[in-house]
Amino acid sequence: MNSWGNRFRVTLWGESHGAQVGVTIDGVPAGIPVSEDDFEADLARRRSGAAGTTPRKESDAPHIVSGVYRGYTTGAPLTVEFLNENTRSGDYSSLETHPRPSHADWVAMKKYHGYNDPRGGGHFSGRITLALVTAGVVAKKILGEGVKFTTEITEIGGCADKERFGEIIEHARMEQDSVGGVVECRAEGVAAGLGEPFFDSAESLIAHLLFSVPAVKGVEFGSGFAAARMRGSEHNDPIVDAEGHTATNHAGGIVGGITNGNAIVVRAAVKPTASISREQQTYNCADGRIETLVIKGRHDVCITLRAAVVVEAATAIALADLSLRA
Amino acid sequence: MNSWGNRFRVTLWGESHGAQVGVTIDGVPAGIPVSEDDFEADLARRRSGAAGTTPRKESDAPHIVSGVYRGYTTGAPLTVEFLNENTRSGDYSSLETHPRPSHADWVAMKKYHGYNDPRGGGHFSGRITLALVTAGVVAKKILGEGVKFTTEITEIGGCADKERFGEIIEHARMEQDSVGGVVECRAEGVAAGLGEPFFDSAESLIAHLLFSVPAVKGVEFGSGFAAARMRGSEHNDPIVDAEGHTATNHAGGIVGGITNGNAIVVRAAVKPTASISREQQTYNCADGRIETLVIKGRHDVCITLRAAVVVEAATAIALADLSLRA
Amino acid sequence: MNSWGNRFRVTLWGESHGAQVGVTIDGVPAGIPVSEDDFEADLARRRSGAAGTTPRKESDAPHIVSGVYRGYTTGAPLTVEFLNENTRSGDYSSLETHPRPSHADWVAMKKYHGYNDPRGGGHFSGRITLALVTAGVVAKKILGEGVKFTTEITEIGGCADKERFGEIIEHARMEQDSVGGVVECRAEGVAAGLGEPFFDSAESLIAHLLFSVPAVKGVEFGSGFAAARMRGSEHNDPIVDAEGHTATNHAGGIVGGITNGNAIVVRAAVKPTASISREQQTYNCADGRIETLVIKGRHDVCITLRAAVVVEAATAIALADLSLRA
Amino acid sequence: MNSWGNRFRVTLWGESHGAQVGVTIDGVPAGIPVSEDDFEADLARRRSGAAGTTPRKESDAPHIVSGVYRGYTTGAPLTVEFLNENTRSGDYSSLETHPRPSHADWVAMKKYHGYNDPRGGGHFSGRITLALVTAGVVAKKILGEGVKFTTEITEIGGCADKERFGEIIEHARMEQDSVGGVVECRAEGVAAGLGEPFFDSAESLIAHLLFSVPAVKGVEFGSGFAAARMRGSEHNDPIVDAEGHTATNHAGGIVGGITNGNAIVVRAAVKPTASISREQQTYNCADGRIETLVIKGRHDVCITLRAAVVVEAATAIALADLSLRA
Repeated sequence: MNSWGNRFRVTLWGESHGAQVGVTIDGVPAGIPVSEDDFEADLARRRSGAAGTTPRKESDAPHIVSGVYRGYTTGAPLTVEFLNENTRSGDYSSLETHPRPSHADWVAMKKYHGYNDPRGGGHFSGRITLALVTAGVVAKKILGEGVKFTTEITEIGGCADKERFGEIIEHARMEQDSVGGVVECRAEGVAAGLGEPFFDSAESLIAHLLFSVPAVKGVEFGSGFAAARMRGSEHNDPIVDAEGHTATNHAGGIVGGITNGNAIVVRAAVKPTASISREQQTYNCADGRIETLVIKGRHDVCITLRAAVVVEAATAIALADLSLRA
Repeated sequence: MNSWGNRFRVTLWGESHGAQVGVTIDGVPAGIPVSEDDFEADLARRRSGAAGTTPRKESDAPHIVSGVYRGYTTGAPLTVEFLNENTRSGDYSSLETHPRPSHADWVAMKKYHGYNDPRGGGHFSGRITLALVTAGVVAKKILGEGVKFTTEITEIGGCADKERFGEIIEHARMEQDSVGGVVECRAEGVAAGLGEPFFDSAESLIAHLLFSVPAVKGVEFGSGFAAARMRGSEHNDPIVDAEGHTATNHAGGIVGGITNGNAIVVRAAVKPTASISREQQTYNCADGRIETLVIKGRHDVCITLRAAVVVEAATAIALADLSLRA
Repeated sequence: MNSWGNRFRVTLWGESHGAQVGVTIDGVPAGIPVSEDDFEADLARRRSGAAGTTPRKESDAPHIVSGVYRGYTTGAPLTVEFLNENTRSGDYSSLETHPRPSHADWVAMKKYHGYNDPRGGGHFSGRITLALVTAGVVAKKILGEGVKFTTEITEIGGCADKERFGEIIEHARMEQDSVGGVVECRAEGVAAGLGEPFFDSAESLIAHLLFSVPAVKGVEFGSGFAAARMRGSEHNDPIVDAEGHTATNHAGGIVGGITNGNAIVVRAAVKPTASISREQQTYNCADGRIETLVIKGRHDVCITLRAAVVVEAATAIALADLSLRA
Repeated sequence: MNSWGNRFRVTLWGESHGAQVGVTIDGVPAGIPVSEDDFEADLARRRSGAAGTTPRKESDAPHIVSGVYRGYTTGAPLTVEFLNENTRSGDYSSLETHPRPSHADWVAMKKYHGYNDPRGGGHFSGRITLALVTAGVVAKKILGEGVKFTTEITEIGGCADKERFGEIIEHARMEQDSVGGVVECRAEGVAAGLGEPFFDSAESLIAHLLFSVPAVKGVEFGSGFAAARMRGSEHNDPIVDAEGHTATNHAGGIVGGITNGNAIVVRAAVKPTASISREQQTYNCADGRIETLVIKGRHDVCITLRAAVVVEAATAIALADLSLRA
């Protein structure tokens, strides 16, 4: 479904080439200053334009249409809309017969009996993450200035050397290919005690949101998969003070599903963009043959670049929901 | 919270040393044959006894107390309880002053203002996963015999050679230490079309449940983190027939958040058991000094051994919930 | 919160004098024909204009902004928006000091610490029921043509004689007063078996939605309060055929919380409009005196006239949600 | 479904003649003193024994099996169970062919394809309200001593004279019949500001729970249906002080879906017991004839007597959930 959250509830809608993408956020406490300008910094981080991102340009101007009065939230649902521009829908009928590999084309046709909107990926488009980023801005306002997010790309194409990221992306682009990457988000200053075990652990909520983003294929906290390769004596984090701070932070700030006052550390693995320019094989649903497919248009070579702020938003939304339950 | 699910709703309760651990499962269709014996195979997989597992022995006999009549589910809530036996509660008051590293002791005290049940970890005990395994058995009945689960431990202590797992665990035990591991669950025969984007993607629901298990610190689907190191041309899975089968399965059977008819492949990273016998340092909450802690009793050296069936149960529960929404 | 529903999920937003009122409906099956024209008949029933209704005129033109492609629902969220026009906001600051009796002014200020949007009642305005009516149209499409709704006003100002309704309203208007009424909604052709006891009984869901409408102060099914005055031998409905039809329908089509295949019969009591033109007393929050209040502007003398379609929509939404769970 | 609540979540299970009826309550704050004795007063109000109630005697001894440690709630799920005793199941197979009028027999068979537990009404039995009463006791503890409930029967068989209630019930009993009634619950001292419009109004939540009780066929707040017969000038409640107190309370303490600090007043119409001893007609599902049915055993002549505490519990649960959201 397209709603998420217990006390901070995000509902989104829209399609890539439809009239708009929108989000309504319920449970926002009254009295928080919000203006349309407040969204710009995070929207810019998601926007295309850098090397390795799609040339489709959207101004992504947010329109607040409910829930704010005289510059402050009212306690009623806060709704923000983005009109779609620069949509060149062209002819998407070929997708029905030639589903793109590792795209949602085939499952969407299957699930929705061919009634899904195929233009630009429709509701499966990465454009829907606009809604998450928007909600993330509000979530961070709720968490307050005491919570500081630091989000960075730690790997691209298997390389951890930030100096070389540009080069790796450029090589992929020249070879009409794409590359994946890893995003790490750290949130410092998060209060201890957030998380509602058994099911609504802090890790469960953050991961739930992250895995909503179609390109995310892995999520780990603290040492994550590396923890599986450690001994308990290495992995255990000794508590060193009355606030629960630990000498190490292999747990990524969450123990027993509850935040422990140390930095939340989460990493998301982002797969390489499925749309690549080079020739691929696919199944022709009309005549049952395997055929060569060339995906037209220009696409993100490395969607990871634009996904960083989305990972941060997801983390912030989960933490805001938990903080409003506390 | 301790409930999860939209159409297949699992609610659990209990503490490690309380009267019982129980689970009620709502939304089970009427007419499914269920007996107490049906749970034994999976409960045995979770039970201690093998090398590397705790010597605490529990018969774990399931008692069906509602929802089954004359051997079939009735459509009313199906409740199963397990009486706790073999609890040696002793004195847990030391936990209040000396929280164990990487255990929930400190966060539980903080969150519940010292009212949490500390005996054996209370509600944070791994014993609570009995409820998940129980619900998993029912979930698999709902999915039907066409869905086949294969779950195995693919790594222990960083080693992928199954032949050496016993040796690695024994070394850790001798050194009064513990080891982590990785569990892989494959589900074949899952129908295409399960998953409710944006938020209730198949990956989101499975990961939500897996991260409810306190020892799980990472979750990935298909190629997972390795996907972040791949090119699109390597990672993309070409569709080869009208049923959506793909030549490769880097996606782990889920594209755009929706199952695509290929095998679901999910891996969970399980951290090393936090309770180790060797000396550790911790903070003495009473007098503010760093002190040496020795955790008494005997514990699982490698909780991964018992977690495999829990990972399978979590996957089955998520898929059952989605299949009942379809 | 501003979302409701398990499988048919309605989320609404907006304020009386804000930019718009909108609704997004999740869980709509793909392939249902929907156009903006489809909403007109029910919107017209809610629209002002008849004697006894407010002179504020709104064209209430629905804009479908997501979830429909080439005239059919896509399975993605269906969003419909209504731009607000004809808002004469004027100065609402007097409400902060002089809350109107039986309006939400005082509770809204209290709950939202004065940050609520007071213009025209803000989010508490009856205008929000536009969203319900819109969702009701879609709900009725899901229920299908086999389900027939008949909704009528059975009482106004205590009078059950439809011929005299106009006269009663006119008297109240001339006396600068308002009148309440009762709406009865019948739904014939509803399948037997809808309702999810214990908590999600058909009656619970319908009543939940009806009591969301601020003016509704009572809800009853079948004989309702009259049942409390009957003997069992009078009230019991004898089953007369294999489809569960009953000779009488004192139950209003719902037994044990589950529809029994007979007509659903529900009645809602609608209070008299709180805004009346004649002088009233209220508390001056600024100086603590009881003062005379005159509410300016023109208002509905009998909101019941416009509430009939809202009651029908609420009933349809609840039944659609239950039918999608079946 | 059998779970209800956002922050105070009640999940129930059990059948009339199964092993037990149980309830687990999630979201109970840690540190509230709870003992098994605390339930006795309200359980006694629900227990049979008075004139007009069923002779089936149950000790209804509550067993707390989780969530309480050393006499205080722990923050983990609080589970209470009641073992069923005194069940004389006999032969219920006749219900499959001869459904009792106005009972859930027919709808249960229809919905659950004949797999429902028919013994004593199974999961549709009024015995399930034990769970509500239990949760109500905990809810009242959360609301605190400042909230005072007064619940009384205001009508039996259409008569409002309490002196004559016994006589009316006795007449019905002698005539092998049953009678309905009305319960009124008042809650004084409830804080202003509870209620989450649009959908989760205080009235919606209370009514949702009340209509879960199978015998309830009408719910009204304050003047309720009488409000529909009033003028605005009569019905409006003038505010008289800074705490929002009103000179009259026609609103029943809820305006715009939000509590206004005045007494909550809610009434529930309880239908006459469907099980009556005198002969009735029903449809023979086996051979398609209308036949005479005699319901054996002894039943409540006036279930309203035992429903009063259930109405109070439902009101308390809804208010507790809202207060934990505030």
